[in-house]
Amino acid sequence: MNNTFLKACRGEKTEYIPVWLMRQAGRYLPEYQAVRGQVDFLTLCKTPELAAKVTLQPVDILGVDAAILFSDILIPVEAMGMHLEFSEKKGPVLGEPVRSKSAVEKLIIPDTEDSMPFVLDAIKILRRELENKVPLIGFSGAPFTLATYMIEGGSSKTFLNTKKMMFQNSGLFNYLMKKLTKTVISYLSSQISAGAQAVQLFDSWAGILSPFDYKEFELPYVKKIVTALKKQHPETPVIYFANDCAGIIKEVKKSGADVIGIDWRIDMKDAVGKLGKKVVVQGNLDPCALFLPKEQIEERVQDILAKAGAAKGHIFNLGHGILPETPVENAIAMVEAVHKYGRKE
Amino acid sequence: MNNTFLKACRGEKTEYIPVWLMRQAGRYLPEYQAVRGQVDFLTLCKTPELAAKVTLQPVDILGVDAAILFSDILIPVEAMGMHLEFSEKKGPVLGEPVRSKSAVEKLIIPDTEDSMPFVLDAIKILRRELENKVPLIGFSGAPFTLATYMIEGGSSKTFLNTKKMMFQNSGLFNYLMKKLTKTVISYLSSQISAGAQAVQLFDSWAGILSPFDYKEFELPYVKKIVTALKKQHPETPVIYFANDCAGIIKEVKKSGADVIGIDWRIDMKDAVGKLGKKVVVQGNLDPCALFLPKEQIEERVQDILAKAGAAKGHIFNLGHGILPETPVENAIAMVEAVHKYGRKE
Repeated sequence: MNNTFLKACRGEKTEYIPVWLMRQAGRYLPEYQAVRGQVDFLTLCKTPELAAKVTLQPVDILGVDAAILFSDILIPVEAMGMHLEFSEKKGPVLGEPVRSKSAVEKLIIPDTEDSMPFVLDAIKILRRELENKVPLIGFSGAPFTLATYMIEGGSSKTFLNTKKMMFQNSGLFNYLMKKLTKTVISYLSSQISAGAQAVQLFDSWAGILSPFDYKEFELPYVKKIVTALKKQHPETPVIYFANDCAGIIKEVKKSGADVIGIDWRIDMKDAVGKLGKKVVVQGNLDPCALFLPKEQIEERVQDILAKAGAAKGHIFNLGHGILPETPVENAIAMVEAVHKYGRKE
Repeated sequence: MNNTFLKACRGEKTEYIPVWLMRQAGRYLPEYQAVRGQVDFLTLCKTPELAAKVTLQPVDILGVDAAILFSDILIPVEAMGMHLEFSEKKGPVLGEPVRSKSAVEKLIIPDTEDSMPFVLDAIKILRRELENKVPLIGFSGAPFTLATYMIEGGSSKTFLNTKKMMFQNSGLFNYLMKKLTKTVISYLSSQISAGAQAVQLFDSWAGILSPFDYKEFELPYVKKIVTALKKQHPETPVIYFANDCAGIIKEVKKSGADVIGIDWRIDMKDAVGKLGKKVVVQGNLDPCALFLPKEQIEERVQDILAKAGAAKGHIFNLGHGILPETPVENAIAMVEAVHKYGRKE
């Protein structure tokens, strides 16, 4: 069993720097496309055997040091009572955006076993399949990121509806955030109980907040989640990835997470300088850098490895999800470069 | 004549902190909508009397300390030889994206007088109309930002085509950037000769670059533009606004611009700390903060004013363009708050 990833999460010494890729199970892999060609996206998320199958693909193909459950961050949002669809053009579409008190009131805090059993079943299959391989990461969207989708009804450019609720009806916004926080705690706790060996909170839209608003409207909820998980599952590492974090990194540090994910828009040296020696860092190669010639991919890997060397520990990753257009051989080259240059003497 | 803005650009003492808003001439104003209702967007940009008319509107309505020429950053891109259209849904669409050597070769470096006379005519009208009022700012997109539109053919989420050219054919990318740099220098120099009293370089997409790539692929060109303008027009202040700058601010400082524009995703205290006392800062209120109740708009204005106090000088502004949905009375409240709390003893 390759435990390098879990050891690194805990800041323990490892023989080499472990690596995995956000969205490593996905469209860039022909093997994924073959499975996805037979069912729609939501069916894939909700069929444990198929979700497990695509989760395993990158472990063998890329040689990464962790598997991450194949799912979507909006699965628990659907379980809270919203109608979810995926459109090829627009991405996720949530019917009837949440913009009123009655809409927030109607949302339920779902029991994972009852309303998302497929997630737990996939985890159980995966733990069996991964027994002599690598650890399994569970995940959830962070509350603010989930709130943006619920309030906007999908993706957004300016997030004006979200900020309007924050700014004009902070009571209602906080009511929604409390429900989301409870949902996320319960959802992640169930994943851990089912077998997830580490969990990652994805805060894809944290970076659209000013530092003041991040501190006011997201950080307290993230802290609450981390604290609750640490209490219930003290041995399970929590990773927090706040995208576009350069301006809020000092606040992100206060989340209490064991590992902080770093996007590509901040120099790793700068990030480590601000985070200090008490947290493990994860990241931070630009996903587009996988379109560089291989020698230059190697150079960038070495640069990040060197800069992260001053942190408590380092898990190599991209600074955001791998792009569907990525050449598989370049992703493999990246993983090999991390294993080669991240080997410790 | 209210010269507060120009004095602040030069770091001279002023009686109060001047303020203007990015996109202050625009859709949030009913008076703009009335003009725009009669002609399409590009016709409005290309009709000097109308462009001048909408440029003047916010000066009277909001009471700002500077006017900024109404135009679009893609006007010189069209003059370089690309076909430009504006779609209600998709925003700007540039026909036949620039992705090959022959496409870059075909681009011309336009003479502003010959191919964009309407810009210079609007400036001349405006200088007459603004004689006893406020200074006029000219502007251009920065080369990297213009390159993204040219290579992507419009807006983008991942900017993959741009980065693919950067990473796989840097010679071609730099060839395009050189042409853009010459175009921007000539375009801004012509605007200054026609009467623009300060110029702003808008680098809307600089923040999608890693610090390494920003330093390699954009900063040298911005420096070249600032240096050339300073040589030709030593008295004219140059403002550089690199959006989402938190991760690259130390590099942005090296641009040589007199004034650095700051978006809202970085705390002003943090920005000033990194920029030091040798540059004037501009910004940095979240455009969505104009949806707050007025008392809270005032509080945020005071907070930014206090934090920017440590810089060489401060010009108040939003951290990005004002949104079309903004209530006009809130924009006025913001301007009044700056003038009230930014008054010096």
